Parts: sequence; structure tokens; C-alpha cells
Amino acid sequence: MSSEFKSVAIIGLGLIGSSIARGVREYMPDMRVTGFDASDAARAESRDLGFCHNVMDDAAAAVTDADLVILAVPVGRMADAARAIAPGLRNDAIISDVGSSKASVADMLRSVLPNHVIIPAHPVAGTENSGPAAGFASLFEQRWCIITPRGGDNAEAVQKLATFWQALGAKVEEMDARHHDLVLAVTSHLPHLIAYTIVGTASELEEVTESEVIKYSAGGFRDFTRIAASDPVMWRDIFLNNKDAVLGTLQRFNEDLTGLQQAIRKGDGEKLEAWFTRTRKIRRSIIDEGQDDPAPNFGRRHS
Amino acid sequence: MSSEFKSVAIIGLGLIGSSIARGVREYMPDMRVTGFDASDAARAESRDLGFCHNVMDDAAAAVTDADLVILAVPVGRMADAARAIAPGLRNDAIISDVGSSKASVADMLRSVLPNHVIIPAHPVAGTENSGPAAGFASLFEQRWCIITPRGGDNAEAVQKLATFWQALGAKVEEMDARHHDLVLAVTSHLPHLIAYTIVGTASELEEVTESEVIKYSAGGFRDFTRIAASDPVMWRDIFLNNKDAVLGTLQRFNEDLTGLQQAIRKGDGEKLEAWFTRTRKIRRSIIDEGQDDPAPNFGRRHS
Repeated sequence: MSSEFKSVAIIGLGLIGSSIARGVREYMPDMRVTGFDASDAARAESRDLGFCHNVMDDAAAAVTDADLVILAVPVGRMADAARAIAPGLRNDAIISDVGSSKASVADMLRSVLPNHVIIPAHPVAGTENSGPAAGFASLFEQRWCIITPRGGDNAEAVQKLATFWQALGAKVEEMDARHHDLVLAVTSHLPHLIAYTIVGTASELEEVTESEVIKYSAGGFRDFTRIAASDPVMWRDIFLNNKDAVLGTLQRFNEDLTGLQQAIRKGDGEKLEAWFTRTRKIRRSIIDEGQDDPAPNFGRRHS
Repeated sequence: MSSEFKSVAIIGLGLIGSSIARGVREYMPDMRVTGFDASDAARAESRDLGFCHNVMDDAAAAVTDADLVILAVPVGRMADAARAIAPGLRNDAIISDVGSSKASVADMLRSVLPNHVIIPAHPVAGTENSGPAAGFASLFEQRWCIITPRGGDNAEAVQKLATFWQALGAKVEEMDARHHDLVLAVTSHLPHLIAYTIVGTASELEEVTESEVIKYSAGGFRDFTRIAASDPVMWRDIFLNNKDAVLGTLQRFNEDLTGLQQAIRKGDGEKLEAWFTRTRKIRRSIIDEGQDDPAPNFGRRHS
């Protein structure tokens, strides 16, 4: 699959940005890839790794040739990034991003860059690692990329962006930005909040030492530590930018947790067993949909 | 490494029991393995799989030759299993179990079998799968097995049991039963309760369909579904048998969650970032201790 874009500029060369760059080099070899990162160290590392044709020291200079510009910075830094590229943008450049919350970011981008076509996107993919060295070309394979255009947005630009993501291996779906934020609050943001919480709780108890928590983590705890190792700044910004959806979903979680807590206190084994039987089925559906490894323990190696 | 036991009887041939049987056959080939399961189907399946020398149709008959008897049934069925084996036990047989909660099970076993040496144990290992076909010989490799003898318990029997578990590949630690229950409430029981809760919550929202939850689960949610696919009866029993420790730990979790909820509501990015930075370090320690795969995403395969 090829793309109609000739030159992509990637602003932010962390896990996601550097994976896009690597994917373009591998799957769309005719396209030119220019990169920029606000961090001197990340620019130097990216030059060494060589996944861009060119890494520039200035954001505006990085976008001058690009017909597609992708902002791959933490959600809280999108506004600065948009202002920084503005002076260098081609009039016909399409601007996209990869932020995990979409409604507030899209509003901001449209206000900072009012004369450009803005097509927000969110590839639902990642790992717990960060930085230019963490990326890899196949990160988006079989994962969904959600594009959130406004009604009336340039349909041709939406199609071109969808084709670009498909060329990276992703499956593409269009969605309303506010609905996206609700869906991701459930499938991503709440799980991260819960994982961050429990890992923090477990490491601060008086009665159980941190060393015990680490040794016996194979009982289930270790699963949560992967998510709770995700980038702190990225996640701080997501929670602050998708506040309402996260807090609403959290309220539902709290109600359910209180219900199970009461069932344990009262010794209501029937309620517990029925609940646990229902949740078992969901995993089967996720595996059938190709979104997880069917091997036990995620196929982990043990030695 | 060899064991001083000559003949082991395994009562309950699910994931754990059948993994022990397979491990004995592989690592202690001189030992005789006799099995029993209360389910006709599990006995038939176990005979087909052939991991025991002999699968008996009666629990008491299964233990007549055994110098080591291991109860590998859900915690709530331990009392029935102990009563069922009692008529067949050799006087010098050592009785152990693999339950995830130890204090209440140990008290019960000592009361049902007052004339036998009882040495409770808990291998902190498992997968989300259940049943005789789910087991494998290497399940306990590099995992901890916690033995919880009482002060004054037969030291030679404790040592023999420790050597048995080491021969299966486990690392062995002795611990007070009540402290075990507190540690496992943190590293295993609370994580399971939280995972069961969130998977149930996510699949019952009105605004987001179950199909959306499944499609976009790679954002983090899918990690929780593995744990929430664990055996419903086993986990019902664990929560009912380790109620106080689970509820105590849950209270601490709820306090921390309320704190992060307030930070999101107030926009306190500093608190969020500091918390998320702290939790990131725990994962590094778990990997360094050999309790998880260092590869991103647990080393999951994606296609």
C-alpha cells in the first residue's frame, strides 16, 4: 500500500513519533521523513538511530517541505508544538496528531492553526517504554487508528490520512472526537489510572515491604506494573485533558468496586462467582478480535 | 535435585495439580504420581493426558501409598478434600496444599487431620487457564513457593517439602501464615479484585459498547482481561477466605484512588506526575528480580 503524501514531518520523536518514522521508511520508502524534538538529547539520539532522513534543530524548519505534519508530543505540549511549526507550514499541509485525548486537542489545534486542514488521529498502540530508541516499525500492525474529523472536514484529506495509517499496518476507524474520548477513558485512561494507583498503594504499605511486593508479584501484581511504567508526563496530560470522561468512568468503577467489596464482607459467594464468570468471556473476545496473544501469561518468557 | 519422597498423591488435577504432576514426572522420575479429581471429566482428561502413573476414582484410594499428599483444589473445597482422603492416609504421610490463602486453610486441615503432619505451601505461579490440559512442567521455574509451617512443626518435614518444590524449579521461602495472607492480599488478591471489577465495569456501560471496548483494548484494558479470565470458583473462595486482609488492603487502595481522583479534578499535574514517576521504578525492580519479561508488552506476539 502506498501513500499520496510525499514528505512527512514528525514533531516529537518518542515511542510513537519514532515508530511512525521507522514505519514510513520501511513501508513507504518513497516518502521523505523529517523530524524534530524539543529535547536536544532526543534529537541527537534520533540522528544516531537514523530513522529520519533529516532531524532539524528548529520545529518550523522541519515542516517547510512537508505535505503531512504529525504532532507526536504529550497532549499538554501540543499547543506549543503547533505554535512552533506555524511559521514554517506549507499552505496545503495537512496537520494531524497522535494524542490520546482528542476533543480538547482538536479545538486547540483549530484555533492555533485556523487556516490549515486539521485531521486529528489516535493510533491505539504503544508499549511501556519511551524515547526515540523505544520505537519500532511494526508497532501499529493490527492495531486500530481512530481518526476524528469534524463533519464538513475535507473528505479527501481524511482519506489520505487513513491510507497513510493503513500503510503503517493499522486498521482505521472514524469516530466523533467526544465519543473517542469516552471510549478511550474506558479502554485506556481508567486502566492506567487504576494501575498507577495500585502500584503506588502496594509500594507504600507498612505491613508489607516493597521487597516482598516485588518478589511475589507473579501472583498478579506484576501485570499492573507494566502499565504503571508508562510515561509520567504523557499520562499526567491525558488525565488533565480528558478529565470529565475519566472522572465519569471512574465513578462507575467505584460503584462496582463497592458492590464487590460488600459481597466479600457479607460472604456473598454467588455474586462473586457470577461476576467473575462474566468477565472471563471478555478476554476470549479480545483474543478472537486479534487484539491480544492467546498464549497463557501473554506468552511471556520466564527465564 | 532429587526428593526424599517416594510417592506423591495429588488431589485436584487442574492447572496447579497437573503442573505438579508433570513436573514430578520430568524432574523427579523415580517418584510415583497418583492423582484424583472430584470431577469425572477431569479424571478422564487426566488419564488421556497421562501425566499421572495412575488416576484413581476415589480420593482415599489415591493416597494409600503416598508419603506426600498435596491438596490442589479451590480453597473452599479443601475441607471436603481433607475429609475424603482421611481414611486412606498412611500414618507417616505429610499433607500439604497449594492454596492462595493460608491461615484459615491451615487451621482447618489441622482440625480435620489432627494426627498428621500438615505443612501448608503456596506456589506463587499460575496462568489464566484452568483444567488438566492447562498445566505444564515448567510452571514453577523461577517462581517463589511460600511454605507456612507453625513454630514447632516438624523441621525435617518442612525441609523435605522445600526440597520437593526446589526440584520443581521453585525458590522457597518460609513465612508466617498470617503474614503470607497479608502479602498475597497485596500482590495477588487485590490485583485480581481490581481487574475483575474494571473488566465488569467496562462491559456494562451504556455509552460505550462492548464491541468498542474489545476493539480498542490495546490501550491498556486488555492487560486486565488476562487476570479477569482466571478461574471464577478458585477466586470466589480466595476472597471469602482472606476477607480481612483483602478488605484492609482495598481500603488503602480506595484512599489512594480518591487522592488521585481529586488531583485530576483540581488539575494538580504535579501530584500526578510525581506519583507516576514513582510507580515506574517498581517495574524495573520486578524485572531485575527475574519476576517478569523485560521485553515491551510482556514480549507479546502481535499476529
